[in-house]
Amino acid sequence: MNRICQLFGISFPVISGGMVWCSGWKLASSVSNSGGLGLIGAGSMHPEVLSEHIRQCRAATSLPFGVNIPLMYPNVEEIMHLVVREQVPVVFTSAGNPATWTPFLRSHGILVAHVVSNTRFAVKAAEAGVHALVAEGFEAGGHNGREETTTMVLLPLIRSAVDLPLMAAGGIASGEAILAAQALGADGVQIGSLFASTTESSAHPHFKQRITEAAEGDTLLMLKALAPVRMLRNPFFDQARAAELSGAGVEELKLLLGKGRAKKGMFEGDLREGQLEIGQVAAAISRSEDVRIVMERLRSEYLSARNRVCAESFTPTLE
Amino acid sequence: MNRICQLFGISFPVISGGMVWCSGWKLASSVSNSGGLGLIGAGSMHPEVLSEHIRQCRAATSLPFGVNIPLMYPNVEEIMHLVVREQVPVVFTSAGNPATWTPFLRSHGILVAHVVSNTRFAVKAAEAGVHALVAEGFEAGGHNGREETTTMVLLPLIRSAVDLPLMAAGGIASGEAILAAQALGADGVQIGSLFASTTESSAHPHFKQRITEAAEGDTLLMLKALAPVRMLRNPFFDQARAAELSGAGVEELKLLLGKGRAKKGMFEGDLREGQLEIGQVAAAISRSEDVRIVMERLRSEYLSARNRVCAESFTPTLE
Repeated sequence: MNRICQLFGISFPVISGGMVWCSGWKLASSVSNSGGLGLIGAGSMHPEVLSEHIRQCRAATSLPFGVNIPLMYPNVEEIMHLVVREQVPVVFTSAGNPATWTPFLRSHGILVAHVVSNTRFAVKAAEAGVHALVAEGFEAGGHNGREETTTMVLLPLIRSAVDLPLMAAGGIASGEAILAAQALGADGVQIGSLFASTTESSAHPHFKQRITEAAEGDTLLMLKALAPVRMLRNPFFDQARAAELSGAGVEELKLLLGKGRAKKGMFEGDLREGQLEIGQVAAAISRSEDVRIVMERLRSEYLSARNRVCAESFTPTLE
Repeated sequence: MNRICQLFGISFPVISGGMVWCSGWKLASSVSNSGGLGLIGAGSMHPEVLSEHIRQCRAATSLPFGVNIPLMYPNVEEIMHLVVREQVPVVFTSAGNPATWTPFLRSHGILVAHVVSNTRFAVKAAEAGVHALVAEGFEAGGHNGREETTTMVLLPLIRSAVDLPLMAAGGIASGEAILAAQALGADGVQIGSLFASTTESSAHPHFKQRITEAAEGDTLLMLKALAPVRMLRNPFFDQARAAELSGAGVEELKLLLGKGRAKKGMFEGDLREGQLEIGQVAAAISRSEDVRIVMERLRSEYLSARNRVCAESFTPTLE
């Protein structure tokens, strides 16, 4: 049986990323109810809001779900105790040192997966005792690694360094890409952009619309002097880009960014002044659909791509 | 039968990129003699040198081979007449408008493939009448697209826009990655970095050594204000990086780059002052080997990855 399905108790190893301003209880429960693992994104929630989402999610599904916790989160300690109190079965951690909280979560019977963008962090996470890893490539939306290593290159490097159940993230929005991730050694995938665009996503309708209209080259990894983040082109993007090209420093970029840019764009729908975080693969997303439809399509695309690959070999079998 | 094997008359749809300072007759003929399609890189050759390599290649193999011609090449007209005169069976064009020379090459019975980094150029190349396309992702070495679209994202976008035989390039140095490219809709692959490191590559031994020592994050796409090129970290890289971070303009970068930087690094082996062009996947290359060994490994890795994927499904078959 597939290691990710076995670990999380799901039927299809597709995890919906715990995205700020997108991943609330509606999205998470819908993904879990469709056979995947839905994650609630704690990164944009105050503790009391997170508790409410966890309770609503539990009311909406009897199946496993999880919470993504960025380890840089200001109230991280409060959040860790909260997920234990609420008996959340799975926690995905990101953006920080997994050694700090993994033993605590494990001691309360919580399954822990950690998101990494290079092999060094993958090995550190394995040493910290995580149950699984997410290898996130350069093409992914949101905050992103400084090495700029793409999913195609990163996944095999991490696969050969660590034997833990491994999920691929970055550039995945189709069953063909899920099969490609499997070919590269992944046991499952974490999908962000595609789920951010679904009916059940908490993102503002204007942002969902913009995702479906995004074209090739419409996103770039920006604000590298602060924390690299993949942003969709809009007037704020242009300002940030101009500042970077003119050699702006950390302070200048912080000033430009200000507070609440992501909320403004992704949750409030201000497509001009907001920061719109999405992956390169948005270029392949043409409509906003229900999670159930999306999950069914991923399954059937995966199976037909697999049938195609298993029917046509690139080379005659060696004697 | 596989469309790329059929088109070029080869047994394994693996093409060795026509890389400046690496792809001479030795590398090209060895790849062709191992069942792939070897390309000679005209980009770093004076016309008379190119003729000599074509003749030596023909003397070393009776199998099909090709020449890669960057369309920005100063003597491009002379080169085009040269490949016709020398009856080169296959030409890969890159970095320019395929409409200019494709009809001429076709009229002389030459098979034409064009390298693209976005869907718009792929459609233009198809309209220009090329026989095949190479979709080159952000992780690839050498000159590279401004959109920064990775192989994982680019390949399916081009696959769905154009029905021509399609090769994937960027991030491919293993049989697992060849299978991943097939999953994403490719009919074959073009491999650069791995062949640049082989015994038969014309690259300087110091550069080959440096490729095998390259670690994750050791390359970045640089000189974006001029023509984006993926470079390996070295003192020259650091100079260029510092200039870019301080907002250097076109003229300043041109001055810094000067002339013959790539030759100095890749062919003359000056690892400090030279420009070292290589793909991200160099991080996965640990030794310099003979082309025959490399091709055998790619075949067996591909076949065992395919057996693995065809044996373990991520999801039960739908009724």
